[in-house]
Amino acid sequence: MLSIALPKGSLQEQTLLLFAEADLPVKRSAREYTVAIADERISKVKILRPQEIPKYIEEGYFDLGISGLDCITEAGADVVEVADMPYAKTGTGVMQMVVAVPEDSGVKEATDIKPGSRVTTEFPNITRKYFEQLGIPVEVFYSYGATEAKVPDLMDVVVDLTETGSTLRRNHLKIVGTIMESTTRLIANRSSWEDPQKRKAMGEIRTLLLGVIEARGRVLLSMNVSKDRLEDVVSVLPAMKRPTVSPLYNTDYLEITTVVDKNTVNVIIPKLKEMGAEDILELGISKIVR
Amino acid sequence: MLSIALPKGSLQEQTLLLFAEADLPVKRSAREYTVAIADERISKVKILRPQEIPKYIEEGYFDLGISGLDCITEAGADVVEVADMPYAKTGTGVMQMVVAVPEDSGVKEATDIKPGSRVTTEFPNITRKYFEQLGIPVEVFYSYGATEAKVPDLMDVVVDLTETGSTLRRNHLKIVGTIMESTTRLIANRSSWEDPQKRKAMGEIRTLLLGVIEARGRVLLSMNVSKDRLEDVVSVLPAMKRPTVSPLYNTDYLEITTVVDKNTVNVIIPKLKEMGAEDILELGISKIVR
Amino acid sequence: MLSIALPKGSLQEQTLLLFAEADLPVKRSAREYTVAIADERISKVKILRPQEIPKYIEEGYFDLGISGLDCITEAGADVVEVADMPYAKTGTGVMQMVVAVPEDSGVKEATDIKPGSRVTTEFPNITRKYFEQLGIPVEVFYSYGATEAKVPDLMDVVVDLTETGSTLRRNHLKIVGTIMESTTRLIANRSSWEDPQKRKAMGEIRTLLLGVIEARGRVLLSMNVSKDRLEDVVSVLPAMKRPTVSPLYNTDYLEITTVVDKNTVNVIIPKLKEMGAEDILELGISKIVR
Amino acid sequence: MLSIALPKGSLQEQTLLLFAEADLPVKRSAREYTVAIADERISKVKILRPQEIPKYIEEGYFDLGISGLDCITEAGADVVEVADMPYAKTGTGVMQMVVAVPEDSGVKEATDIKPGSRVTTEFPNITRKYFEQLGIPVEVFYSYGATEAKVPDLMDVVVDLTETGSTLRRNHLKIVGTIMESTTRLIANRSSWEDPQKRKAMGEIRTLLLGVIEARGRVLLSMNVSKDRLEDVVSVLPAMKRPTVSPLYNTDYLEITTVVDKNTVNVIIPKLKEMGAEDILELGISKIVR
Amino acid sequence: MLSIALPKGSLQEQTLLLFAEADLPVKRSAREYTVAIADERISKVKILRPQEIPKYIEEGYFDLGISGLDCITEAGADVVEVADMPYAKTGTGVMQMVVAVPEDSGVKEATDIKPGSRVTTEFPNITRKYFEQLGIPVEVFYSYGATEAKVPDLMDVVVDLTETGSTLRRNHLKIVGTIMESTTRLIANRSSWEDPQKRKAMGEIRTLLLGVIEARGRVLLSMNVSKDRLEDVVSVLPAMKRPTVSPLYNTDYLEITTVVDKNTVNVIIPKLKEMGAEDILELGISKIVR
Amino acid sequence: MLSIALPKGSLQEQTLLLFAEADLPVKRSAREYTVAIADERISKVKILRPQEIPKYIEEGYFDLGISGLDCITEAGADVVEVADMPYAKTGTGVMQMVVAVPEDSGVKEATDIKPGSRVTTEFPNITRKYFEQLGIPVEVFYSYGATEAKVPDLMDVVVDLTETGSTLRRNHLKIVGTIMESTTRLIANRSSWEDPQKRKAMGEIRTLLLGVIEARGRVLLSMNVSKDRLEDVVSVLPAMKRPTVSPLYNTDYLEITTVVDKNTVNVIIPKLKEMGAEDILELGISKIVR
Repeated sequence: MLSIALPKGSLQEQTLLLFAEADLPVKRSAREYTVAIADERISKVKILRPQEIPKYIEEGYFDLGISGLDCITEAGADVVEVADMPYAKTGTGVMQMVVAVPEDSGVKEATDIKPGSRVTTEFPNITRKYFEQLGIPVEVFYSYGATEAKVPDLMDVVVDLTETGSTLRRNHLKIVGTIMESTTRLIANRSSWEDPQKRKAMGEIRTLLLGVIEARGRVLLSMNVSKDRLEDVVSVLPAMKRPTVSPLYNTDYLEITTVVDKNTVNVIIPKLKEMGAEDILELGISKIVR
Repeated sequence: MLSIALPKGSLQEQTLLLFAEADLPVKRSAREYTVAIADERISKVKILRPQEIPKYIEEGYFDLGISGLDCITEAGADVVEVADMPYAKTGTGVMQMVVAVPEDSGVKEATDIKPGSRVTTEFPNITRKYFEQLGIPVEVFYSYGATEAKVPDLMDVVVDLTETGSTLRRNHLKIVGTIMESTTRLIANRSSWEDPQKRKAMGEIRTLLLGVIEARGRVLLSMNVSKDRLEDVVSVLPAMKRPTVSPLYNTDYLEITTVVDKNTVNVIIPKLKEMGAEDILELGISKIVR
Repeated sequence: MLSIALPKGSLQEQTLLLFAEADLPVKRSAREYTVAIADERISKVKILRPQEIPKYIEEGYFDLGISGLDCITEAGADVVEVADMPYAKTGTGVMQMVVAVPEDSGVKEATDIKPGSRVTTEFPNITRKYFEQLGIPVEVFYSYGATEAKVPDLMDVVVDLTETGSTLRRNHLKIVGTIMESTTRLIANRSSWEDPQKRKAMGEIRTLLLGVIEARGRVLLSMNVSKDRLEDVVSVLPAMKRPTVSPLYNTDYLEITTVVDKNTVNVIIPKLKEMGAEDILELGISKIVR
Repeated sequence: MLSIALPKGSLQEQTLLLFAEADLPVKRSAREYTVAIADERISKVKILRPQEIPKYIEEGYFDLGISGLDCITEAGADVVEVADMPYAKTGTGVMQMVVAVPEDSGVKEATDIKPGSRVTTEFPNITRKYFEQLGIPVEVFYSYGATEAKVPDLMDVVVDLTETGSTLRRNHLKIVGTIMESTTRLIANRSSWEDPQKRKAMGEIRTLLLGVIEARGRVLLSMNVSKDRLEDVVSVLPAMKRPTVSPLYNTDYLEITTVVDKNTVNVIIPKLKEMGAEDILELGISKIVR
Repeated sequence: MLSIALPKGSLQEQTLLLFAEADLPVKRSAREYTVAIADERISKVKILRPQEIPKYIEEGYFDLGISGLDCITEAGADVVEVADMPYAKTGTGVMQMVVAVPEDSGVKEATDIKPGSRVTTEFPNITRKYFEQLGIPVEVFYSYGATEAKVPDLMDVVVDLTETGSTLRRNHLKIVGTIMESTTRLIANRSSWEDPQKRKAMGEIRTLLLGVIEARGRVLLSMNVSKDRLEDVVSVLPAMKRPTVSPLYNTDYLEITTVVDKNTVNVIIPKLKEMGAEDILELGISKIVR
Repeated sequence: MLSIALPKGSLQEQTLLLFAEADLPVKRSAREYTVAIADERISKVKILRPQEIPKYIEEGYFDLGISGLDCITEAGADVVEVADMPYAKTGTGVMQMVVAVPEDSGVKEATDIKPGSRVTTEFPNITRKYFEQLGIPVEVFYSYGATEAKVPDLMDVVVDLTETGSTLRRNHLKIVGTIMESTTRLIANRSSWEDPQKRKAMGEIRTLLLGVIEARGRVLLSMNVSKDRLEDVVSVLPAMKRPTVSPLYNTDYLEITTVVDKNTVNVIIPKLKEMGAEDILELGISKIVR
């Protein structure tokens, strides 16, 4: 029923992994560029450059797709944002689109950039609009890649995506402005979104995908505690959500299970033990749907 | 107590993985061909060609073994089939032994094959018997491998195992008959099977191996639900087996846990959410023994 | 607050894995030899040869460290043993320091070794003390590695660590005495241990590390059982610890969950089934803190 | 003295190999994007996208560079072609820029393409000019890659580079027109070329590069022959170039050495033997400068 | 014109390398099992199990082929041996077919083997004939591989090919007899060999193949020597063949070039220097045709 | 006749490659640590730590060996230096043993180092002697490796080998003194060297090894030139050594062959062409013995 466009390139491996873990595995057929998802809600899948996906979705070639906010904005595509999906190979999945100049340049903020500067970028539309709003006339050159390496020899200014800024620093560039923040988005064609049946199917796919993202970096803790220590133990657990508490059979003990962030386990487990929790077990989780 | 023969070659990696997951890990010793399982029911293990295993078991060199039905039949071995074990690296683990001829041949069914045809196969006994039953006198040649490649230059007909038929099609062959279906089998020596102590041990090993196969492709779903939505939620779950429902402490909520097929999760989770299930968690399972 | 020394070399990979699983991941920074743990209890981490760690800890360069008992003894370091941590890539993590001579030598026990023999070892202090206690004057040579290969051409006797003795046998050596048994230890500086705040932090780190080691080789079994079979089923489970038993909703069944050693599962599961347990599930565990 | 721009991407590995074999090895420095050639004629080297190189050379950022004729034409750059350098990983190094449509389309020649067709290409300038000359108004879309895969679902026509057409055929496309032929070129900035000193240096670099390309696929044959068989033997050798003939000492024999194409050796050697050549040796050559 | 059968398996890689170096490169086509040699003397090439090749050649399915003498003998094929081609990945290319028994068996020679022994082998015909000639009735079992590993548990005697005997020794087997010696052979169909045109083409292919084998393990030595030391220097060189001696220009020196075995270079070069040779150069050779 | 010790570890791969290219290939036998060279001058080979080799040679366990000057000096071994062999994986093969301190230390020269400083080194004997000669009392600690990483936390001063100093710089250390320069040496036992037969054999092995080192980084150029341009062409070639000039048959041309450094080819070939050389060929060389 739905046709879906998935991104080729740096996001591809992580996107295929995400769909596989969401029980929507993408299978390659014998013919090289033909892929499919064996799910009754999904009739067609294609893997395409993320720069081209937003426009194809606007034009109705696909109902649903995945692309970065940077590509959606650059393409100026009129689409519905179904979900923000901050997944990435490493780190948080949040990228910054920044303006950078050589470290030893006198420029301190983007507004100091001289008129007539040569600007290299893979995002010429966003870049032109940004400098127009600043009122600085510049020459914008489309970059075919390795953008940072062209400054200062061939170009004066770089506009590029970065997660930590380390590639820029290695090239002796400094950031003097941030144009936008970008994460991966699940986007839909406007009229597909108005179709109730398609919107229900899209919502279910979003549930499965977000269920996997939610489970990443979380673990299940299970422990036993006597009734009189229950409140002490619960006080250590994250406040956001009540844990699941079950009675045990023929005893005054209760079993508590709760989901916690993996990066808080080093602090929580010693405290739980101190508060009287016994037989604490940690288990992995593959999906969480609240 | 038991001696076991495991298959070398294409089944070997999956068999060793299966035994390891069944908590019967096969350890290699320093000497190259000596392996062992540290389990008090098992005194000896050897890794041998699957073609040779059925006969060794019939002759009493081993009590228990693993081989394909194709090899058991070809060897004409008189053994007890303890269990059908459809495991494989990919797919279903079910193979077909087929008769194939060149695509552009006039032959449409096996009965069209001309008397005197040259047939290449790794299963000469099965093949001879098959053509005798058809009443077509053919010349059967034992093949050392790459059987499909010999037709049409050197041979007229192929009898070979195939899962999807794709290798045959790539060699421009078409299937004109199916001789038998084959899966991997757990087999036992007849007199070992009559020995009550040995039969009990074999049964326990079967339980462990099937416990792993059963768990593959399944996951555990756990969720909370208020008592008044219980029946709605349960109605979504597979009918075959009642889920486990536990009361929660000091609340009207219940916890439901159930095992479902991984390839139904894409449909079930959205429905569970729709029916009122909260905090749905998916966890991996390593063994299921009903 | 705490400074920690971790071992380089054969133990390194397993140690880094252990800390990562204990939610104390060791991150490498850009500079090659600088590592860090992002935990508020830990201010400094360094990776060093295990031979050198005990002395550095005695001298107060680090509060806490990991090394083998063999290295601690060879160094003669005065440190506090916080925990025995028998982790290793394979096997039990228990090593033997042995005396070995050529297979075809007449020597049967260490006391048969001739005065004046040439002994090669990576542990000269332990070795000298050992032969002094035996009253046999020998020449001890420090070995830079591949110790076994020097006998019999260049040396008469080897003193070396071994887990299974197989490397020695491959070199046609036989063991004629055992000097000591060694496992990996968590050790602390004496005065750091006297500091209450540091001792609390060390205790929490020990809890996390042992929580991982405890979970290795164990699995969680969950099963349903009718009330009248409860005692039968419980009788099969390890006596040490009562299992967790929960009532099920509107039924006479109970749910039992318990942690068992992975290497007993091959025996326990068949017995549980025999005793009436149903729907037995096995799940992996990543941490256990009693 | 000279600054040189080399191509990143699919040509990069072969270009670096060519320069290394020409004794102009490109060394990477510690900083990622900085490379250098230790040759007194070359002051600066940079590795850049081949699409951008022609324009930078026209503008005088570099004296000399390597790019494909396709990129030079697309950029519309005014540069001097110093040499045609048909090197490539496999095959002849000659690419065709073609117009392709779906196999089952009614289109037979480019002139049959319907007005208003959607054309996808990485070469929008060349493509627009081509269809203007044909007098067919089309919509040209810049393609970010995997161009063939967009037809017929998203686009109607592909303009792309191909060596053998096999990728197009695998995507069920047929070629209906050829726009241009492209090989790799050594190009120079116009005013650098007018500078006599720079032109001499460029000529020497061309000599070294072409010396390597000339030697590829050729071998040196050396043989002895008696004076009276000289003409017979020489008649077998390629006519283009007289072989080198040397007298031998105190004998009527001569030594002949000559360079031949490796792909003629299978025919030439048996003929040389037949004509009386003795002790035929074949040796590899790393450079040929006529 | 000629059809050729090349061996699959352990000889395959070396055979394809040999043909490539002989300027008869075997190219794989898109279809998996189809290969070809672009040479006007060769119309068809096929890669097949070496056990099957001799019979196919006898029967006229191919004109020319490569197989081991062991396979030719086992098959009892009536073919023409065109050349002995002792090439192999390592070592000399000469294999022994041996009879082996457990190290600790009382058997000292093959004649000691007890009547009724169970013999495992990949060469049942040769084995049966061998034991018949010895007058010892044995049971011969065809082995599917890993032959050595079956003794002593399942079999009493092994007949197998070995180059150095090391695999046998590792399995604690000892050699008690040698049945035959085997090398790789170039073989032809009898009637193809009678055809003058085919025989000429086969001779040319043999020339090219042997030209490569001849060059392996040989190098070209070139040196200068004064006329009065000529005989001293020549006396050091292999007697078999006079070296090539050329006059130098305007000097009393001569240049000597000669081909020597690489494994004699360690002895010859020091002697040449001692005898007055100057500027000795060693160069690699890719083909030698005398 | 000769027994030889070769170095294990960082020099091993390059040493084995050197011996193989010198036609003295080192073969591993089945037993792990046993190696051999099939050369009648060499009866025994062993691969040992380079630190241990000098002493074993002094003591007569081996006649000949390879080790670094640093190890020879540290061991204080009384051996004969047969040849300096500057081979290495990369670079010149020349190492410096230096004294280094933290970058931000006030120390400018080794003489500024404070009495009582803690010095870490793999060369304690050399280090102690060096500081004694400086008259600075220091504490010298033997380092098991990763020496640089111990400063400044655990140690004050490093004495270590370095080729380019880059590892030291990466660890923020600066060099304040150089103790010695080290290259790889071919060394002999004193009394073996006095034995005329052994000395002759050692000289021959030295000739073969140096023949390979000499050929590395050199190529053979061959070209034709008319007699009247001979002197012009010769003037371009390296002066050190006259090239080999041969007359050609029935023509006024001469053939010139000469060995040149590979890193001068980029300059020489264009000049040779300018001076009238024709048909310039470049060939690789595997050994040069002047």
